[in-house]
Amino acid sequence: MSELHLARWRERIDAALALALPDPTASPQRLHAAMRHAVLLGGKRMRPLLVHAAGTLFDAAPDALDAPAVAIELIHAYSLVHDDLPAMDDDELRRGQPTVHVAFDEATAILAGDALQSLAFAVLADTPVSDAVRIELLRTLANAAGSAGMCGGQALDLAATGAGTLAVAELERLHALKTGALIRAAVRMGALCGGAASDDLARLDRYADALGLAFQVRDDILDVEGDSATLGKTAGKDAAQDKATFPALLGIDASRRRLAQLVDAMDDALAPFGSRAEALAALGRHAVDRQH
Amino acid sequence: MSELHLARWRERIDAALALALPDPTASPQRLHAAMRHAVLLGGKRMRPLLVHAAGTLFDAAPDALDAPAVAIELIHAYSLVHDDLPAMDDDELRRGQPTVHVAFDEATAILAGDALQSLAFAVLADTPVSDAVRIELLRTLANAAGSAGMCGGQALDLAATGAGTLAVAELERLHALKTGALIRAAVRMGALCGGAASDDLARLDRYADALGLAFQVRDDILDVEGDSATLGKTAGKDAAQDKATFPALLGIDASRRRLAQLVDAMDDALAPFGSRAEALAALGRHAVDRQH
Repeated sequence: MSELHLARWRERIDAALALALPDPTASPQRLHAAMRHAVLLGGKRMRPLLVHAAGTLFDAAPDALDAPAVAIELIHAYSLVHDDLPAMDDDELRRGQPTVHVAFDEATAILAGDALQSLAFAVLADTPVSDAVRIELLRTLANAAGSAGMCGGQALDLAATGAGTLAVAELERLHALKTGALIRAAVRMGALCGGAASDDLARLDRYADALGLAFQVRDDILDVEGDSATLGKTAGKDAAQDKATFPALLGIDASRRRLAQLVDAMDDALAPFGSRAEALAALGRHAVDRQH
Repeated sequence: MSELHLARWRERIDAALALALPDPTASPQRLHAAMRHAVLLGGKRMRPLLVHAAGTLFDAAPDALDAPAVAIELIHAYSLVHDDLPAMDDDELRRGQPTVHVAFDEATAILAGDALQSLAFAVLADTPVSDAVRIELLRTLANAAGSAGMCGGQALDLAATGAGTLAVAELERLHALKTGALIRAAVRMGALCGGAASDDLARLDRYADALGLAFQVRDDILDVEGDSATLGKTAGKDAAQDKATFPALLGIDASRRRLAQLVDAMDDALAPFGSRAEALAALGRHAVDRQH
């Protein structure tokens, strides 16, 4: 049942993204093509699926969820474009495709990322919900994307790379910002569209925080164990770049145990919602079981 | 009288910017320091001054104008940080100071720009005006910053550089997006905070469009005639990079005549407001008369 939901939502998300992105035949064509390349060529759509799953838990109108679902994916996509740049992670492959600076050029990749971020807020400003909820959505996304959220986490990641051993607590804080902030925002935005009360929002924050960290622990394990073809990006990059990762700090077995703890934490946070949280639970399992 | 206003507003803007930017002693310090470097080390503050000047014309509360004034300057500052990157204009000097990627590093400059853009929307989401006006401010800024505005103009600029002769109309369109969109947004946001009616907004758009273009024509003339010490950035860069400029296309004399036409267009647009538009008129003169 929830798998069917997810497949249907994924289609809806891809259609909404294609519609929100600028027309590739309109000027400036190269910028528009780069923006579409960054967003439309694959991706798990985990964050927009979380918007739909959290919104549905509170009976939000599907039409209201399209805008935050699109906006969160645009922010995620822009961060990947900039993260892949030569001055950052210098990645040539993403989702099995050449990264934007490889398919286009560096300057276009920088601008496409910038324009995707602006577009996220433009889309969100048109969400068909009350003005008060709309402002709360905008505030949630802006804070999650900035220096107290995703960008701050990336800065911590830069500082940690090659700087020797990091404590596990520091690594978890890094990921709470770098990956966690956006995942928490996705869940919150969906719930806000359904008028969730603050105690339910707090429960969902606990779910989202466990999910964000579980996603990253799984990512680190996959980088060690996966191969580039399955991953759709270069495997073994973390070790090559001397990145702080859970396997490097804890070893593979302890990383797996940490993952199991986080699955329990997700289950605990969702328990009060019962079977109504089935889609959120399924997304949690996907993050933990995925092979890429 | 208006000079006094401008000086007082400039102080108010600088104080609001310093307050809105993240604490440089809080983690991640390097990112926060880079964000503050990008914004606080000088700058004419033309866009935030336009917010105050347009707002005052409609008796907007000064407290309401602080947020859009800060937000527009954060967007402008982020665009300069990214524009100065090696993959873009490759500039080492800005406002007489080392550019962010020189003072810090490229990865930090990319992230600082990204975080400044997010912060602009976070600040704007807290503007003390009605929810409806706040959403209109957010929509105005997001559209002006993105691919239909500033980023689109920069993409056109990239495409034009080294691509041979551009028609004057194409150059004007490029600048209408690259510089004009944000200047128009600054004026509009100020007016929106004061509850301006749509016919007044249309008059102000005409003023802002003339100002934006005049600013750019003056910039191009200064790049030919100025010296790096006065400009606070490298002079003669446009010609060295084979950039499309008004002097290159029209010659210096015709560029000066175009500037005079634009001054007339600004005066015409502001005429219905009489002496109440004194501050906007003064900002127009500054853009045209400036030596840097």
